[in-house]
Amino acid sequence: MINVHVYITLKEGVLDPQGQAVQRSLTALGYDEVDTVSVGKWLKLEMSDGADVESRVEQMCEQLLANPVIENYTYYVEREEKV
Amino acid sequence: MINVHVYITLKEGVLDPQGQAVQRSLTALGYDEVDTVSVGKWLKLEMSDGADVESRVEQMCEQLLANPVIENYTYYVEREEKV
Repeated sequence: MINVHVYITLKEGVLDPQGQAVQRSLTALGYDEVDTVSVGKWLKLEMSDGADVESRVEQMCEQLLANPVIENYTYYVEREEKV
Repeated sequence: MINVHVYITLKEGVLDPQGQAVQRSLTALGYDEVDTVSVGKWLKLEMSDGADVESRVEQMCEQLLANPVIENYTYYVEREEKV
């Protein structure tokens, strides 16, 4: 089994109300040093390895995990080192 | 300004209905190789640097960003290399 870490973020220019709400709350709590907050999703997929893992993960992202209109995705595959 | 990347994940043993829902959807779409999905949050804080950045970020996590009962958090500070 391998772990694939997928990071989903909003595209540049897309409004981030969640990030704005967190930033306002941090300021209200006295953390004035925080200028901007961006909020995104992180998914860890535990899955079986295969030659086409990368293309399968990209299909999953484009088909379900990320909204291609407003979101970007990046991922990396974590394979156990064979000792 | 610096960027602080905060990753918030559910603690071991805490039910992850969102992860289960994503996993079921992936299976329904034919991605049988995916065994388990864990869903978490990723936040990027753009903030001013300071000697106590680490302790301030930990306070923000414990006070607002992560729910200490069911969530773990990790973070790393991304500072621009001074050339």
